[in-house]
Amino acid sequence: MSVIKSEIRGGVYYDSAVLMALQRSLADLPGVEDAGVIMGTPTNKELLVRVNLVTPEVEQAKENDLVIVVRAGDERAASDALQRVDELLSARKSSIQQDYRPRSLDGAQSMMPDANWVLVSVAGRYAAGVAREALRLNKHVFLFSDNVSVEEEISLKAEAAQKGLLVMGPDCGTAMINGIGLGFANKVRRGPIGVVAAAGTGLQQVASRIDQLGGGMTFGIGTGGRDLSEKVGGVTFLMGLDALSRDPDTKVIVLVSKPPSPKVADQVLRVARKAGKPVVVNFIGRTPISRRVGNLFFASGLDDAAALAVELVKNPPVLEGEPELPIARFAPGQKYLRGLFSGGTLAYEAQHLLTEYVPKVYANAPINKENKLKDSLVSVEHTIVDLGEDEFTVGRLHPMMDNDLRIRRMMEEAEDPEVAVIFLDVVIGFGSHPDPASELGPAIAEAKAKAEKAGRYLEVVAVCTGTEEDPQKLSHQIRQLKQGGAWVETSNEVAVRYAGQILQALNQPSEETQLIAAPVDLETLKKPVKALNVGLESFAENLTAQGAPVLQVDWQPPAAGNEKLASILERMKKLSSAE
Amino acid sequence: MSVIKSEIRGGVYYDSAVLMALQRSLADLPGVEDAGVIMGTPTNKELLVRVNLVTPEVEQAKENDLVIVVRAGDERAASDALQRVDELLSARKSSIQQDYRPRSLDGAQSMMPDANWVLVSVAGRYAAGVAREALRLNKHVFLFSDNVSVEEEISLKAEAAQKGLLVMGPDCGTAMINGIGLGFANKVRRGPIGVVAAAGTGLQQVASRIDQLGGGMTFGIGTGGRDLSEKVGGVTFLMGLDALSRDPDTKVIVLVSKPPSPKVADQVLRVARKAGKPVVVNFIGRTPISRRVGNLFFASGLDDAAALAVELVKNPPVLEGEPELPIARFAPGQKYLRGLFSGGTLAYEAQHLLTEYVPKVYANAPINKENKLKDSLVSVEHTIVDLGEDEFTVGRLHPMMDNDLRIRRMMEEAEDPEVAVIFLDVVIGFGSHPDPASELGPAIAEAKAKAEKAGRYLEVVAVCTGTEEDPQKLSHQIRQLKQGGAWVETSNEVAVRYAGQILQALNQPSEETQLIAAPVDLETLKKPVKALNVGLESFAENLTAQGAPVLQVDWQPPAAGNEKLASILERMKKLSSAE
Repeated sequence: MSVIKSEIRGGVYYDSAVLMALQRSLADLPGVEDAGVIMGTPTNKELLVRVNLVTPEVEQAKENDLVIVVRAGDERAASDALQRVDELLSARKSSIQQDYRPRSLDGAQSMMPDANWVLVSVAGRYAAGVAREALRLNKHVFLFSDNVSVEEEISLKAEAAQKGLLVMGPDCGTAMINGIGLGFANKVRRGPIGVVAAAGTGLQQVASRIDQLGGGMTFGIGTGGRDLSEKVGGVTFLMGLDALSRDPDTKVIVLVSKPPSPKVADQVLRVARKAGKPVVVNFIGRTPISRRVGNLFFASGLDDAAALAVELVKNPPVLEGEPELPIARFAPGQKYLRGLFSGGTLAYEAQHLLTEYVPKVYANAPINKENKLKDSLVSVEHTIVDLGEDEFTVGRLHPMMDNDLRIRRMMEEAEDPEVAVIFLDVVIGFGSHPDPASELGPAIAEAKAKAEKAGRYLEVVAVCTGTEEDPQKLSHQIRQLKQGGAWVETSNEVAVRYAGQILQALNQPSEETQLIAAPVDLETLKKPVKALNVGLESFAENLTAQGAPVLQVDWQPPAAGNEKLASILERMKKLSSAE
Repeated sequence: MSVIKSEIRGGVYYDSAVLMALQRSLADLPGVEDAGVIMGTPTNKELLVRVNLVTPEVEQAKENDLVIVVRAGDERAASDALQRVDELLSARKSSIQQDYRPRSLDGAQSMMPDANWVLVSVAGRYAAGVAREALRLNKHVFLFSDNVSVEEEISLKAEAAQKGLLVMGPDCGTAMINGIGLGFANKVRRGPIGVVAAAGTGLQQVASRIDQLGGGMTFGIGTGGRDLSEKVGGVTFLMGLDALSRDPDTKVIVLVSKPPSPKVADQVLRVARKAGKPVVVNFIGRTPISRRVGNLFFASGLDDAAALAVELVKNPPVLEGEPELPIARFAPGQKYLRGLFSGGTLAYEAQHLLTEYVPKVYANAPINKENKLKDSLVSVEHTIVDLGEDEFTVGRLHPMMDNDLRIRRMMEEAEDPEVAVIFLDVVIGFGSHPDPASELGPAIAEAKAKAEKAGRYLEVVAVCTGTEEDPQKLSHQIRQLKQGGAWVETSNEVAVRYAGQILQALNQPSEETQLIAAPVDLETLKKPVKALNVGLESFAENLTAQGAPVLQVDWQPPAAGNEKLASILERMKKLSSAE
């Protein structure tokens, strides 16, 4: 019968690579069936139960206790294995060629003063402390460690933002800086695509696909998966986006995130709109309404994001200037939309698109029941009325054939001091009114004059649907509508988005989304990577393999992992620096 | 002071064009300020109130009463106006050149027996009856009328489906058949794009944009906005899609709908997947998760749908055959997915994509809180575990560096008789395990063997993320995973969709979506339009203007609009035909 034996060690620290190696070595010993070397967290202990590696002693172990367990064929083999633990630990050889290993970041700094990056992958409970030291030395931080509290993350990022430094992480799996991969990183061709990602394997998937499709990258800036949460507020993400916007070698930006906070995502998108270059967006779980809005290209997934970016590099899109919005012309209190549609589908699409701009649009034929207008004849706040709905067409011609009802309603809406925008669709073709704009054009002029007389400004936006070959001729209709003073588009989406932007501006008064961070110094960021590595040795080995200079720090936790002593030391440090 | 006078007429029928003309003529009479000629519905009466055109008599009017109101400067002018009503009604001239007007469809049929279409635009309460007559004469029906009950729609479409005839409508605004527009229709170039639309102005917008972009159309098949509701079940939509799939001149199909029933939309998409040609889909309000799935291209709006269709004609996509799913190999009871991820983002994206295939996926890092796994170590139904989550990495190497935990879990899952698919991500690159597939490949083989021994089949799907230049070399990893028996992709989306299809097939046993409709005869559908028009004369005029032969039917409601008498007549007709 098998025998299980265990040993618990408190107050020691080894990195996880060392623990894993020990576990493997123990399992390979003669007579040993299985072995576990873990920290005593609940999940870890439950895992030991599931593989039959638990003893009463293990059950009592605490989170920061090192737990070593073996299951062997007999008593003897189990005891022998445990007795060899120290020998196995000390037998472990490093593959890093480095004559002297500094024991602190300060020591490393004096050996490699021009290092621009610090990689941190020590256990989560120590990681913030190391990152803070790195910031004090004015280095960018690649913070691989997870199990770092969100409070620590916020405070680290606040400090970094003040200094124009990037804190990538915690829990940042990957980054690519000037062709050098940090952490988990794929070997990707250099090229004009820059990625910011709150999504480690998301960034790896996008980068790999870019390479597979023949594209290449300037930067892959990881932020840690929590960066776009409401609490953290996207500090690193926004700093990264800003840096890539300024980088002349980055022609296309890709933004990737695990499900972000809607509020932070909105802010990121507002900033991205001003990047001055194409930005591909893939926020997982936030399905975009449109494929493209100005310079933003919404991807439907990681692979699509990569493909879109490569395509945009090959065929750079024309980025038209945004139309200037007549915000300043409106009187105080003007803020609502009144959409008077003849086409039901156009009215639906308008409602759908407007969800991106205003919280609620009432309608007689609403997309969601709760937005149903109580009385189709009385507009409420933002309202879209489909005048072609059944209720309006009993014994009455369809509004595409007869403008009477719509013109009457438009005059009513123009009297409402809260109305800013009136939206019309003008659908021509066989069957429709023979020359609708000949009536609507002058009516628009009248409505606008009415508002002006009352000291207001009324924007009338029209989408005109039809062709040049239609009996009413598209260009002839557009001309007459413009003569009436309307803003005219042939795309329903473009027209609705124009109106939507006005409404957004009027209803969310300029809460300017200013990044309080100091901008990242682009010159420093574009320097070759030179790094100090604190934690997993393999990360240093990888940098060496990529030809980047790196110094491994032989870091040990304060007070050799004794938490109480460490906290006393920390308090003394604070006191002395406060003096 | 103004005087308002009204007249109510019961049991009469005029089409809405006649009523509108009368209203305009009355309003133009000397001394008349405004006039209203409407049917006495609540909305119409409220409209009269709003323009100060109401009398106590008007308030009492019933839905089927014709209401005539004038407001004039004095008593005399008001009375004079009302007295001229009959004169104005009879003075109305038709612009249709037609020597003899048949008074019924039967009469029209004998005059133009080879007419293939009947256009119906009489008042809603009579429209179904006319449409039914048309079906009995074996004609396709363009049913413009609205205010037709959904029960009538269902019964009409059932009858039409049996005969392989299309009922476009009720409330169908537009259609384009072989270059001829029915109802409201734009003059659009002929070309290889066919559109099916449960969305009148949606179809017009798409058609107009196709023309503006230089493209052209075979057919524009309208169905009426309610066709994709759950009750109606998409009868006409599916018949139209089927016809366009078979039409050799249609190279690209576009599907447009106002917000459809999710269930019916799913069915349409399943049928569209088998169309054998590219299908562009724009279902308003149903934002697609992906840009493309096989031959389906999801557009983000009406304009995008048109642009995509034109682009797909220019650059026909390669439509690869679908991989055959190993459904038959699974044992009864096998139905669940177990996703064992090392990458958090890949795990999130997988959850997001799987919402299209299965109702719920549990996860330790779920997209929605309600899908949170109670115990990360115990899978429930469909489960995705991110083994790189904080809970697993305390004192343990990340699963991208060490396969131990994942392999143990895979063996556990392989023992579960309900598990059909195991999904893995294998992320290579600097920092990752030096050769993960050398361990995972044999483990996959072992897991599959375990299942086989128990009389089951286990599908292992893997996405491999990385590049050829990575230390582990992408192709080398893929080869080893395939040797282990895994289905391997480099795109996370493609891999997840493959797994999703298997799960869908295993969890929704073959409820075959058979269209019970007789297929539309393509030869007849492609014949030049020759139509009988019942209702708005302008629709006949438009056909004439487009060069299509048309016969206007001088239709009057049964029993001259007397509802009671009409229903007695209808019952007698039924009795006699039942004999």
